[in-house]
Amino acid sequence: MYRTRQMRTTKYLLSTQKEMPSGTDIISHQLMLRAGMIRKLASGIYTFLPTGLRVLKKIESIIREEMNNICAMEITMPFIQPAELWQKSGRWDNYGPELFRIVDRHDCHHVLAPTHEEVISMLIQREISSYKQLPLILYQIQTKFRDEIRPRFGIMRSREFVMKDAYSFHSSQECLKKTYEIMYRTYSKIFKRMGLIFKTVAAGTGIIGGNVSHEFQVIANNGENHITFSTESDYAANLELAEAVTLICKRSPPKQDMIQIDTPKTKTILSLVKIYGVSIEKIVKTVIVKASQESGYKLVALLLRGDHELNTRKAEKIDMVKSPLTFASEKEINDWIGCTTGSLGPINLPFPIIADRTVVNMSDFIAGANIDGKHYMGINWERDLQLPFVADLRKVAEGDPSPDGKGILKIVRGIEVGHIFQLGTKYSSVMKTSIQGEDGSNHIVNMGCYGIGITRVIAAAIEQNHDNKGIIWPIQLAPFEVAILPINMYKSLLVNKVTEKIYRLLIAKGIDVILDDRQERLGVMLADMELIGIPYIVIIGDRKLKHQELEYKIRNFPQIQTIKESEIVPFLLKACDK
Amino acid sequence: MYRTRQMRTTKYLLSTQKEMPSGTDIISHQLMLRAGMIRKLASGIYTFLPTGLRVLKKIESIIREEMNNICAMEITMPFIQPAELWQKSGRWDNYGPELFRIVDRHDCHHVLAPTHEEVISMLIQREISSYKQLPLILYQIQTKFRDEIRPRFGIMRSREFVMKDAYSFHSSQECLKKTYEIMYRTYSKIFKRMGLIFKTVAAGTGIIGGNVSHEFQVIANNGENHITFSTESDYAANLELAEAVTLICKRSPPKQDMIQIDTPKTKTILSLVKIYGVSIEKIVKTVIVKASQESGYKLVALLLRGDHELNTRKAEKIDMVKSPLTFASEKEINDWIGCTTGSLGPINLPFPIIADRTVVNMSDFIAGANIDGKHYMGINWERDLQLPFVADLRKVAEGDPSPDGKGILKIVRGIEVGHIFQLGTKYSSVMKTSIQGEDGSNHIVNMGCYGIGITRVIAAAIEQNHDNKGIIWPIQLAPFEVAILPINMYKSLLVNKVTEKIYRLLIAKGIDVILDDRQERLGVMLADMELIGIPYIVIIGDRKLKHQELEYKIRNFPQIQTIKESEIVPFLLKACDK
Repeated sequence: MYRTRQMRTTKYLLSTQKEMPSGTDIISHQLMLRAGMIRKLASGIYTFLPTGLRVLKKIESIIREEMNNICAMEITMPFIQPAELWQKSGRWDNYGPELFRIVDRHDCHHVLAPTHEEVISMLIQREISSYKQLPLILYQIQTKFRDEIRPRFGIMRSREFVMKDAYSFHSSQECLKKTYEIMYRTYSKIFKRMGLIFKTVAAGTGIIGGNVSHEFQVIANNGENHITFSTESDYAANLELAEAVTLICKRSPPKQDMIQIDTPKTKTILSLVKIYGVSIEKIVKTVIVKASQESGYKLVALLLRGDHELNTRKAEKIDMVKSPLTFASEKEINDWIGCTTGSLGPINLPFPIIADRTVVNMSDFIAGANIDGKHYMGINWERDLQLPFVADLRKVAEGDPSPDGKGILKIVRGIEVGHIFQLGTKYSSVMKTSIQGEDGSNHIVNMGCYGIGITRVIAAAIEQNHDNKGIIWPIQLAPFEVAILPINMYKSLLVNKVTEKIYRLLIAKGIDVILDDRQERLGVMLADMELIGIPYIVIIGDRKLKHQELEYKIRNFPQIQTIKESEIVPFLLKACDK
Repeated sequence: MYRTRQMRTTKYLLSTQKEMPSGTDIISHQLMLRAGMIRKLASGIYTFLPTGLRVLKKIESIIREEMNNICAMEITMPFIQPAELWQKSGRWDNYGPELFRIVDRHDCHHVLAPTHEEVISMLIQREISSYKQLPLILYQIQTKFRDEIRPRFGIMRSREFVMKDAYSFHSSQECLKKTYEIMYRTYSKIFKRMGLIFKTVAAGTGIIGGNVSHEFQVIANNGENHITFSTESDYAANLELAEAVTLICKRSPPKQDMIQIDTPKTKTILSLVKIYGVSIEKIVKTVIVKASQESGYKLVALLLRGDHELNTRKAEKIDMVKSPLTFASEKEINDWIGCTTGSLGPINLPFPIIADRTVVNMSDFIAGANIDGKHYMGINWERDLQLPFVADLRKVAEGDPSPDGKGILKIVRGIEVGHIFQLGTKYSSVMKTSIQGEDGSNHIVNMGCYGIGITRVIAAAIEQNHDNKGIIWPIQLAPFEVAILPINMYKSLLVNKVTEKIYRLLIAKGIDVILDDRQERLGVMLADMELIGIPYIVIIGDRKLKHQELEYKIRNFPQIQTIKESEIVPFLLKACDK
């Protein structure tokens, strides 16, 4: 663990500030500035002051311990890397302007590294020759660089950031899978040890590439990502990727005849509901998008229930649909169908129809007639029109059944703090990272990569744990576990004696403790320590000492408590798990 | 301390190599490559493999502990810094092409930092307002960047390197001096704890600037710097800066008459000694250099005893002498004196004469006559020519008396691993770093800065501690304290049982131990562990186990020793100071 001998506020760069800092748009950024954790040097570039660095080091220690526990080996790869390596992998061009580039005094081009797949593939190619030396997990804890177009949210999206990046190497896909599962469990353990509430979700692979990938998301109101999870199982997914099941298990037989009605003033679904008093769950909406070239069609119709939203990523993954998803223009709809968007429907449509899973089980439903100002009511599949292609087209909504059949879905926002990938041979094949296999012949190695955004974890932890007074640190991440606030320490001999005694006892037991010896009023000291988010605050004053008592305050509990002087140290040892 | 749970060679990236690596010019670079500590990625840019990083982390731990002990606070300042800051301090231009520069996507210019005086001055200006908050020591442990024109010697002169840099701030010069002394003692303690032989020398201040400065030099044959120290006191200095005392305490009265002799074939001092059989200690040599403009003269003559060498840095510090030191050309000497350099001497010289401290105490000496092919013998001060200006002009030589009057001087070579500076107000005045003083008015703060080249310490430690088998780590820096080498571990149940028992016992006691479970021959294992430099190697085999015995080898001791099985763990605990 990262520890310093002892700390008194008069010898410490506290740097707290009462005022709300300008130019900050999320609470974690504001609180990190106010609590004296970071200072901005330039856009997206920050200095870590002592309080901020203490939290950073505690996170690093937890990660290092857990990585070492699974026999991963720590290394350090260079910050500056030759352009040729990145040209070889293709990322010199693909990474775009987010890649910081440097030209040295000899006019050689270099990259200021955001990630290390190229370097480690080359390293392994040189150092490892036989399957006997695998599997192998290497990791580093290091500052990385990304030239964000608009750095924002403090250290949440900065240009310099600290990452733990790990890379694993395997002689087979099965072995990669096994290690991936170990890493999955290790990451879960790491974030649990940090005292954070998080969800693990299946994820896309983006610019890193590969096949299988999971994100670790810390739940917080300000999260950039929407994620959904089951109330009764481990199921969790990125909202965009979550499977939506049908909400109607079985189609009922028709009860109504199909009739055309005049709907002159209904351009939207809501107006249809309002004017005609029909249930939104009886309406089908039709979205016209461009078809893929291979399909042979110009346009495709997508059908969703009136209260459902189209998930564009799901739609563009369908072969028949053009990717990226492109909506038909008003003019195209008018030219090809002869009406405006408010009157679209599946009856007599000259294009293929893809219906969402729920839509295909609807009966007696309402939709546009493809004639302006007209709708059909009482439409039924098979009787009035043939069954469409069926697909999962919609965004899941809160209250949907979980796709694993257990519980219902909730939707929350999350901050991505970890990401693990099964890369397979994506980098090892271009970097020619091969080994001699058990059969004596050469094999390209399988590779996994695993990242934790360490500076991001700090911001995410604060987003999840704060109130109007400041940060509320989980004890495992707190810069100090205990703060001691003596009242009139330099006037009362008794306060002084008791303060120094408790301070020494706690230090001796390995507790991270800060003693506020600034001679400030209790209110000022308390406000500072609550702003910084110290979990346990001990208040020592003559008034209570008369009765051999002290006071303490647990940060996330509103009242100040009284305790016998003799009990405070045992109480704190237990609270700090010492 | 930096520890991992446990380590077996089959799960470890040992990466040792027998072959001498090509393109290496010093032993530490060769051994770091062969011991699997580092790998080159590009010119002056290295990856640290597990063994190298373990040593690096041990050094960092020692430094961090000692810095925290003096209540210095750790922070982390950015790698990327805006150009404006460096323009403000003037170093954007002065630092030259060694400064890595970056242009970001918005065309803003930045520096990839080699040092942090600018950033920390600005930080302190914002965070500190009163003398009550001082003194303050802040430090960081971080990779730095320098675009060396010719990176060489491995990590000794690389483009990426790890530094501990510390900065102190004070409301007075006296307070700066006090902290400087504390830092001086702390640095001495740090290098002692690392088990290194080093000397602390007064030094110049170079590009960092300031008034007082000391270097910490690790003694090693390959060192770039020549340093001199006393055999009987703490006196040590850079050879260039070491004071040379007179070798003749009192001038003897003249014994000879001054006579002119013909010396047609003597262009050099050595030929004078050889042909005329005179002692070199009776000869004075004359060096003609340009005078400073302020002196009003064209040239100046410098006199040294025949066996002494001119110290150019001492000479150019004399007001009368032009700086940088410029020797008079043959033509100038001929035009102004009328002879060639081989016949120069102090008699009838039309320029001011500055004599070294030893020369002014010589009597009956020999020098050129300023006439080609002629010398004077039996020259005596005051009788034959007036007393000259006297100065310390010569380089000290091995065997000279120490300037502090205690012992004689030795000359060794050193590698600079630490440097401390009293900067005064050099940076704080340009960065406007001021505080409110005790008198209520504004004062520019006094500043000190203190660096340790952490990666350099690794190379220096190896240069100082190695033999033809490999590295000999001081135990405090060793990647592992103990290596266990079992013979036929997978064939002999007994060897297996004893090996695992000792391994577990040592780990439980907190010893860093590596178990070589590769099933290699003893010779191969021993060669690897001696190459890596593990201080204690335990050999476990059936032959000795029959008699309840084991063998061990201390790395810097040639013989393998025998010990009772029951005594090995207590022996190692004591050896490792556990």
